[in-house]
Amino acid sequence: MTALSTPSKLRGKRVLLTGAAGFVGRHMIQELLRHGYEVISLDAVPADAPGAAGLPAYHQVDLRERDAVHALMADVKPDAVIHLAAISFVPDGNRDPQLLLGVNIGGTIHLTNAVRAECPEARILFVSSAQVYGTATAATAEFPLREDSPLLPLSPYAVSKVAGERFLQACAATYGLQVVIARPGNHIGPGQATKFVATSFAKQVLDAKYGRITEMKVGNLDSIRDFSDVRDIVRAYRLLLERGRSGFAYNITTDNHVRIGDLLQLLKKIIGVEIKTTVDPALYRPTDVLQSIDTSRLYSDTGWIPVYSLEQTLHDIVASLEETAAT
Amino acid sequence: MTALSTPSKLRGKRVLLTGAAGFVGRHMIQELLRHGYEVISLDAVPADAPGAAGLPAYHQVDLRERDAVHALMADVKPDAVIHLAAISFVPDGNRDPQLLLGVNIGGTIHLTNAVRAECPEARILFVSSAQVYGTATAATAEFPLREDSPLLPLSPYAVSKVAGERFLQACAATYGLQVVIARPGNHIGPGQATKFVATSFAKQVLDAKYGRITEMKVGNLDSIRDFSDVRDIVRAYRLLLERGRSGFAYNITTDNHVRIGDLLQLLKKIIGVEIKTTVDPALYRPTDVLQSIDTSRLYSDTGWIPVYSLEQTLHDIVASLEETAAT
Repeated sequence: MTALSTPSKLRGKRVLLTGAAGFVGRHMIQELLRHGYEVISLDAVPADAPGAAGLPAYHQVDLRERDAVHALMADVKPDAVIHLAAISFVPDGNRDPQLLLGVNIGGTIHLTNAVRAECPEARILFVSSAQVYGTATAATAEFPLREDSPLLPLSPYAVSKVAGERFLQACAATYGLQVVIARPGNHIGPGQATKFVATSFAKQVLDAKYGRITEMKVGNLDSIRDFSDVRDIVRAYRLLLERGRSGFAYNITTDNHVRIGDLLQLLKKIIGVEIKTTVDPALYRPTDVLQSIDTSRLYSDTGWIPVYSLEQTLHDIVASLEETAAT
Repeated sequence: MTALSTPSKLRGKRVLLTGAAGFVGRHMIQELLRHGYEVISLDAVPADAPGAAGLPAYHQVDLRERDAVHALMADVKPDAVIHLAAISFVPDGNRDPQLLLGVNIGGTIHLTNAVRAECPEARILFVSSAQVYGTATAATAEFPLREDSPLLPLSPYAVSKVAGERFLQACAATYGLQVVIARPGNHIGPGQATKFVATSFAKQVLDAKYGRITEMKVGNLDSIRDFSDVRDIVRAYRLLLERGRSGFAYNITTDNHVRIGDLLQLLKKIIGVEIKTTVDPALYRPTDVLQSIDTSRLYSDTGWIPVYSLEQTLHDIVASLEETAAT
């Protein structure tokens, strides 16, 4: 799929992965193990929590605790860090900015300072978000959005990502830390929590199929969102860790704009059932943002292109939910 | 001092001032009252706390509490907001980033959202900091630093100010809020807490004069810092509130670079006493930053130039400490 075949100097080395017990973290681990990396997993949940059970070299650390982060880094001294951990559900951040800021910014500061102190050669991949562009409009930016487009973060979540990026870029410029910044769009896939729309819809349509519900509540069906497959996204992360340029940010998205109503239709077709929908304004998000996003930098530097179709992704989400329900 | 004499449309109107009970807040109130504004004071400390006693229309509100901020804004509906409140002592922020982020970013988000909801015409002056430029060097920026120079925030404090700026600029671009951003350098003056260097030194030299100590501990005497007088700074804030362009940031500094050792010499001369100094590495700051900063935008738009000499400022700090000691 890619014309770039230079073997990476990182291959086979130790990667510390934060947020390992989350939805993206578990896919990231698969991607890394499949490509010969040694993975050290970190998350804030106990080792016997559902998400953490079975993760390689698992460490329970709350990134808000500076001393614990430094102690871990001194112990592990990884060759690279993929920093996924974040409060990532936007409505959670709107409700409790303090927690979000503490984890997303405070945690990033602690982690970076620990790298600087304990393993300053380690490459850091910081997982930011395409939401840093905020509600960029034709008046404030050119489309498609490139990595140097204006950052107009409106949600506490987006603000936290801009702050993390700026701090890491300052550390790269000042201390010579190796930092690559990823700006993914929305991503979905097997294993995502049901508070996210694709899994929420899939679960409800399945519930209808098995007669557990006869009606589902939905937010704004005309809202248009970009949905990448999490497996495409984590492959981009791995490629950026190997080939991204330090100090640079990279957009990652399939840029396939999907109406939420169409997503629901596709799910009903895949599952083979109809269900009545009621619109619930409480499910509307305060800041629904969508812009066309340019990924040519990512393609040029890593050869990445997405390989999962939306149909494939939804099919796999449904299969995963069926499997979970069966066990 | 200024060629601009257009009377401001804001003159005489209601200004909500956050951080009113702090060092800068109390000077800001004097500046506003002297120019005919009605001031509503806000801070997190109780109304009978030393800093808050006697402040005009005082409200005790913790900006981390979203609902309290909205309730106040609905009640007060000011014509303008000067947002000074912040954890501003850099070492405090290094020790406890969570508190700093919650107050400095979370508080700013709550305040701005409350303005948007309750009084969207109100002009907001956001007090950021020249520390947003971080350790910009000749390799990463041109000197003197202008407002569009790269932001390389290294301390949690600087990160919090960059985040606040970006959020406010996003709100200006997206919702049309009127936002002006001030980036002051270090400022000193009568009434500052003794943990800040000028007042700390002045107090110790006075203690030596009155025989209470015979030796003082100092940090890096060769560190060079910029010291503006707080009264010049708050005048710039008032002028920016009246004349600053929305969506723009403004540097504010006298740009007088002073060696900390020379500051100490000046204080000894003013007070008329010698004292032995011992260097204590614990007093070294991890990130001492100084660059030359351009204030031509501020001058062009408001006519501001500083009027206090360093000697005058130090003299007034000493006089204020003597007065406090005498009462």
